[in-house]
Amino acid sequence: MSTGPPRGFAVAEYERRATTAQAMLAERGLDALLVCTEPEVRYFTGFFTPFWQSPTRPWFVLLPREGRPVAVIPGIGEPAMRETWVEDIRTWPAPRPADDGISLLATAIHEVAGRKGRVGVPMGHETHLRMPLADWAALQGATPGIAFEDATSIVRGLRMVKSEAEIAKVAHVCGIVADAFEGLPQLLSAGMTERGAFRAFRIDLLERGADDVPYLVGASGPGFADVIKQPSDRVIEEGDLLMFDTGTLFDGYSSDFDRYHAFGRADDGACRAHEVVWDATEAGLAMLRPGVTTSDLWAAMAAVLDEGGSLGNDVGRLGHGLGMQVTEWPSNTRDDGTEILEGMVLTLEPGLTWAPGCMMLHEENVVVRADGPELLSRRAPRDLPVIT
Amino acid sequence: MSTGPPRGFAVAEYERRATTAQAMLAERGLDALLVCTEPEVRYFTGFFTPFWQSPTRPWFVLLPREGRPVAVIPGIGEPAMRETWVEDIRTWPAPRPADDGISLLATAIHEVAGRKGRVGVPMGHETHLRMPLADWAALQGATPGIAFEDATSIVRGLRMVKSEAEIAKVAHVCGIVADAFEGLPQLLSAGMTERGAFRAFRIDLLERGADDVPYLVGASGPGFADVIKQPSDRVIEEGDLLMFDTGTLFDGYSSDFDRYHAFGRADDGACRAHEVVWDATEAGLAMLRPGVTTSDLWAAMAAVLDEGGSLGNDVGRLGHGLGMQVTEWPSNTRDDGTEILEGMVLTLEPGLTWAPGCMMLHEENVVVRADGPELLSRRAPRDLPVIT
Repeated sequence: MSTGPPRGFAVAEYERRATTAQAMLAERGLDALLVCTEPEVRYFTGFFTPFWQSPTRPWFVLLPREGRPVAVIPGIGEPAMRETWVEDIRTWPAPRPADDGISLLATAIHEVAGRKGRVGVPMGHETHLRMPLADWAALQGATPGIAFEDATSIVRGLRMVKSEAEIAKVAHVCGIVADAFEGLPQLLSAGMTERGAFRAFRIDLLERGADDVPYLVGASGPGFADVIKQPSDRVIEEGDLLMFDTGTLFDGYSSDFDRYHAFGRADDGACRAHEVVWDATEAGLAMLRPGVTTSDLWAAMAAVLDEGGSLGNDVGRLGHGLGMQVTEWPSNTRDDGTEILEGMVLTLEPGLTWAPGCMMLHEENVVVRADGPELLSRRAPRDLPVIT
Repeated sequence: MSTGPPRGFAVAEYERRATTAQAMLAERGLDALLVCTEPEVRYFTGFFTPFWQSPTRPWFVLLPREGRPVAVIPGIGEPAMRETWVEDIRTWPAPRPADDGISLLATAIHEVAGRKGRVGVPMGHETHLRMPLADWAALQGATPGIAFEDATSIVRGLRMVKSEAEIAKVAHVCGIVADAFEGLPQLLSAGMTERGAFRAFRIDLLERGADDVPYLVGASGPGFADVIKQPSDRVIEEGDLLMFDTGTLFDGYSSDFDRYHAFGRADDGACRAHEVVWDATEAGLAMLRPGVTTSDLWAAMAAVLDEGGSLGNDVGRLGHGLGMQVTEWPSNTRDDGTEILEGMVLTLEPGLTWAPGCMMLHEENVVVRADGPELLSRRAPRDLPVIT
């Protein structure tokens, strides 16, 4: 088992993230950035724990116009935050519903933004406010001179372009997943249940060096429409298709690609669908380079799907960003229009319905280099693999 | 490997959840309940997928005053939602940032609540709104006659008391985790890294029948303060303590308990601390029955910790609710004051600092029966276990 690239990031990486965000704050005339969701807090501080699964306590990080972030967090998180580059850590004994950090946060906001100031908060697409809505109202009440403004563009712009250290983590986990997918014919056979197949695949990924497999969906059958499914006790039979799609993690960075396999024999419709989505991916790869847009990628892939006889696609897009989360900005859609930049990590994910109720999705993970895409997943074969 | 209790729930369980919530809506004069977070959507519909890890798309469920819930969801979720008891499913091709379900949701709200109506939304402690803040403003703009009011008490009141079917799932996963903890002396030894120990434990839990291990934290050393930590490459040595705390899942229901083990030999301070937190748990168990409050539980455990020489506890509480999430309402704190009811599933989690930087937490999982607590975890030994 390879141990992979170094864990964590150098302080210089956090400094670069902070100063880039601070330049954006200055450009917008904002005095500070306030974030409260796991990926944003981790991005700016390095604070990394699954404790976010507990919905009880809110967590806040303020990035002032200059200097390091200020953490306003529950006391239980102080030892972990002390391990990061953050120096100014303010805690309260959470949970304390009557004032769950709000007065402490209001004080910190006034310190960094003055009595009358402007504070950016992500309010747009793919963001949410991870604190009680009533506390958000209380915070606004406690900071009457502060204008809170949408700062989605700052975190979106920053996070979409990955550093080499981030890319190395995604590349490593994609390699583990690619190895596991290639090993599926040795791991699975007709007669297993879906649940047994999921369990075996999850354990195999861990044994190959993955830290965790938080996202694993899949289905089996002659064909299926549900591509975000959990396993059932259905027994996999000869002639079935099996799809696995996984966001597997290494050091907090995710893969996101899938593979279809047939058992015993492959249906002609499924084989043809696999070729079409593979060809559509090829068209996306041929189009992908800095300067084109996500809508150019969409159009290149959509043309192949249409020509291949697609009956539709309810996924809503043909791929997206990838990094700390299994899906990130941007989206490859008709209208998205985001300019592709060097260093973006993306999925190409064309999908089609080849017969009513039968969906075929294909996904690869790439990083955008100056001269085009570099695959992070290992390119699937064009022919639908058959497990015999 | 036991297959455990039946997967999913009978429709009657969803009917009971809906009609109980509807009675609460009627009592409050609310026309509907709007929820948009994973546990709430799952609770009312049965919709169950890890796809929520993708932050891209919002999901909405409206519970009218009568009848089944109405799902207003991205098209990618329609096949999975069709498998639930929900009949009225409305979809849009998400992601569509310009109108990500907002106009569709506004129409549905007007249908169930009229042009002038009152709609409950969880806005209080342990809740958040999982949609962009800008979309929340757009929804309010699109429904000018609708008053949105805090409905935390409805989802909190409902979810805190578990059905027998829910209890069976928690009991099953607690049994798996108890077995795995008892097997740790065969699995681990000094000389392993923390990372290796985490990996071995996670795989062992899966092999014993867990569906997933999303929450696993732990630490090793002579003593440690960080109780929400991820593993490092530190090598576990003779004389070390090792703590694992896990939220392991069966059919979407979680365990939440921890165990400490010493390697080779146990430090006197650690042994004494283990006895004190064990005794504090015993005091909590002796107090626990319907009619007492979470603050009574807190006081019973806190008295033992104080008497045992605790230097403090930064966790902020001495246990909490447990179910679909690794932590749920209520909290065992000095001021919480929630009345304990039959059917609540709780953790008792006394913790103390026995020396500077040395924290000892102890946790058990119980269900409240008419005559007192029934353990779901298997009671730890009072003496700190030593792996030799």
